[in-house]
Amino acid sequence: MPRRSQGTIPLLTLDPGAANPLYRQLADALRRAILEGRVAPGTRLPSTRSLADDLAVSRSTVVTAFEQLNAEGYLVSRVGSGTSVPGDLPVASAGPLPTGPGDGTAARPWAPPPPRPFRPGIPALDEFGRGPFGRMLRSVWRSPDAHALALTPPAGDPDLRVAVARHLRGSRNVRCSPEDVLVTFGAQEGLAVAFEAVAGPGREVWMEHPGYIGARHAAESVGARPVPVPLDEHGLDVAAGRRRWPDAVAAYVTPSHQFPTGCTLSLPRRLELLEWAAEGDRWIVEDDYDSEFRLAGRPLPALQGLDEAGRVVYVGTFSKSLAPSLRLGWIVVPEPLRSRALGLRLARAGAGSPWLQQALARFMEEGHFARHIRRTRRLYRARRAALAQAVATHLSPRGVVLREPTGAMHALLDLPPGLRAAAVARSARDREVEVLPLDYFAIPPDTDVGEALLLGFAGYDEAAIADGAARLARALDDVGEAPPH
Amino acid sequence: MPRRSQGTIPLLTLDPGAANPLYRQLADALRRAILEGRVAPGTRLPSTRSLADDLAVSRSTVVTAFEQLNAEGYLVSRVGSGTSVPGDLPVASAGPLPTGPGDGTAARPWAPPPPRPFRPGIPALDEFGRGPFGRMLRSVWRSPDAHALALTPPAGDPDLRVAVARHLRGSRNVRCSPEDVLVTFGAQEGLAVAFEAVAGPGREVWMEHPGYIGARHAAESVGARPVPVPLDEHGLDVAAGRRRWPDAVAAYVTPSHQFPTGCTLSLPRRLELLEWAAEGDRWIVEDDYDSEFRLAGRPLPALQGLDEAGRVVYVGTFSKSLAPSLRLGWIVVPEPLRSRALGLRLARAGAGSPWLQQALARFMEEGHFARHIRRTRRLYRARRAALAQAVATHLSPRGVVLREPTGAMHALLDLPPGLRAAAVARSARDREVEVLPLDYFAIPPDTDVGEALLLGFAGYDEAAIADGAARLARALDDVGEAPPH
Repeated sequence: MPRRSQGTIPLLTLDPGAANPLYRQLADALRRAILEGRVAPGTRLPSTRSLADDLAVSRSTVVTAFEQLNAEGYLVSRVGSGTSVPGDLPVASAGPLPTGPGDGTAARPWAPPPPRPFRPGIPALDEFGRGPFGRMLRSVWRSPDAHALALTPPAGDPDLRVAVARHLRGSRNVRCSPEDVLVTFGAQEGLAVAFEAVAGPGREVWMEHPGYIGARHAAESVGARPVPVPLDEHGLDVAAGRRRWPDAVAAYVTPSHQFPTGCTLSLPRRLELLEWAAEGDRWIVEDDYDSEFRLAGRPLPALQGLDEAGRVVYVGTFSKSLAPSLRLGWIVVPEPLRSRALGLRLARAGAGSPWLQQALARFMEEGHFARHIRRTRRLYRARRAALAQAVATHLSPRGVVLREPTGAMHALLDLPPGLRAAAVARSARDREVEVLPLDYFAIPPDTDVGEALLLGFAGYDEAAIADGAARLARALDDVGEAPPH
Repeated sequence: MPRRSQGTIPLLTLDPGAANPLYRQLADALRRAILEGRVAPGTRLPSTRSLADDLAVSRSTVVTAFEQLNAEGYLVSRVGSGTSVPGDLPVASAGPLPTGPGDGTAARPWAPPPPRPFRPGIPALDEFGRGPFGRMLRSVWRSPDAHALALTPPAGDPDLRVAVARHLRGSRNVRCSPEDVLVTFGAQEGLAVAFEAVAGPGREVWMEHPGYIGARHAAESVGARPVPVPLDEHGLDVAAGRRRWPDAVAAYVTPSHQFPTGCTLSLPRRLELLEWAAEGDRWIVEDDYDSEFRLAGRPLPALQGLDEAGRVVYVGTFSKSLAPSLRLGWIVVPEPLRSRALGLRLARAGAGSPWLQQALARFMEEGHFARHIRRTRRLYRARRAALAQAVATHLSPRGVVLREPTGAMHALLDLPPGLRAAAVARSARDREVEVLPLDYFAIPPDTDVGEALLLGFAGYDEAAIADGAARLARALDDVGEAPPH
């Protein structure tokens, strides 16, 4: 029987009988209510517990729905003070929908605000924008071959597949030929295709806990069942995974640089994981999202390169190395899965546009990609030092501890006892600083992963980093002075 | 129990118990065998009937699998003489896969050949390539706003959504605001998202018969069940659909210019279809793929504009009006479906790259899109006249009859008695002319839709059209002289 909300938010109806899982029905209903302005920006929602009671669903259903909307920017969650619609979400501005022809005056739809410290996942965009990519794009457009181009090769531009395969073999020790490389719309499509190819509906997939929420959503979107496997200092605890989730058919890992904790999967663990996959015809989805930027010495070779049994689907992206707005990534697919993966992406999204792919192929062939990596690596090292300096100046006196970043894009700050990370993140937002509480990455939600903040620093110059740290310090003081929740 | 092929093709294993339908398992297995070179280019496959017996599956399973691979270019079907792998499919050239790093010499992956007469769906690409779009692309890249852009708005570039909404209201009488417009990776993603939003797994969706195969594949890819509804001179026979498929939850139609027959859905039929949708809370997916190019007078307004009940999902694309390689299209989604549609596309493919979208928004805002439509409409009118002339010269003497094209992109040729369209298409291929037999669009496969050929003419200049018609005439003679199959 359908379940309806009674509470402070508009009437929501969930249908436990529907194919669509309850958490997604709830997320859809709330998103719609927000888009329609029935839930106004700034509105505070009921607690997950009361809404769960209200709807007669499990609390984790509500938490997962909130997380999804949180990731999409429709909600901001505040541990201790519930969840609300961001006050600056300009959905109401769209106003009543004009109907009929002739109305050209409708409000411009909402667009995400520009990045500001310390939003994670943002590389040095100016550095890329100033570079020669624009010239490549122009020359691609000029070439008659491009003019004549009617369709895109289903698996991606052939030259880009060759360039990516060469890069992966040379710098990541990945075993692949261009035929193994499938160009995707960034890592998100790569993960969705990978999970759909290796895990059927309802099949369990190990997820690192804490781990990357986007991967979890990709797995859920194809009907797979993500299950949490804990981490220790050696990375994913394979033995624990075997004990708790013996029926899992695949594992999602970020072995080179675990997201968000930054730990590295040790060699014994890598072999243990590969053995687990090989012995049971299971699959490993390796997300090598920012491996180009390991600052301590040479990047670790990819797990895929150790794999003798061909059980690893290797996922990568240009979002971190160049720019998220390219929306380009790749998956390296073991041959037995290749045609299925290709079929899945074709029926869903079709092929991508060749223009950016051809420009990027040229960018790589002419060595600009490698140069850009070297240049930004130096830049990020300097920015990491600037962050350490700024933390020492503004935050260490307040008991905040910087975990030495192993990567070049983000860092973790441990908060002093008594401070809730989510409360600090909320308060930081009021100070125009973006930080994510580590528990945002908890799988399952609401499990204790310590009170720490994730800070992205790669995309911001020294001045912005110093200013951001000073603002964050003031945000900490605000919370300290605020009455306890 | 698993079913294995015994015949002339490599061992195939199908699992009737798997979630993946048999026809798709078969398509995947064959595609893989072809990609691996285990089935060499030029190889002739067993007949659908014998392969069906061999695998103990229904013949339509095999026919559907073959159709899928046909659409992807892995197979060419020849009525009367079975199906084979195109001789020019350079998959074997990839050779053995190099393993381990350092091997940069792998063969360049396969890419589709450039278009040649009379491949359908190809607009005047040179005309677009010569135009100002390149300048827009350059200026977009130069603008710092673009440099700073980190992420793409999930539903597409706001300015493009505004421009598309304005275009649709003004020229197609579509009721929409920019908020209703979701930018997609061409029509393919638009159709997949639309079908997934309106039809759950196993639910029946009316398809025009004969109709667009890509839409059928999109519906199947999301688990919906496409069912055939016949056409008459007024378009989709709604009464027949009601009788045969009373449980259908949605209908797919191309009302402005039915693909491939070119007929138009009459106003009474439009109202009948809208009534069917409104009375049963059913949905209509309107594919308005080439409406800009109706040559006879002003294009008919979209069905969506007549819809008082908000039951129409309107799908469009820039592939026909500008270039397929842009991979840009849109869906106009009724508000109740909007957030679900957005969620579906985000989890699957993520957002698209903003670069082309911003350039296209500018291209439309500055009036270049409207000018391009006007210019190409004149161009296509001339090319249509050239086709009529060439047919009169080379093909009419052989008993071929040109159906007066109602659109500007493709035409149908009726063959004289005794000639099989598929045999002529095969023979034309040997003469380096591409035509599609009308029965390729039969839903279900193998139902008689008459012996006719589909010719695209918009993308080819007068000389190429005349030459193509002459080659096609010779191909006809070849078939006439060939021993009967």
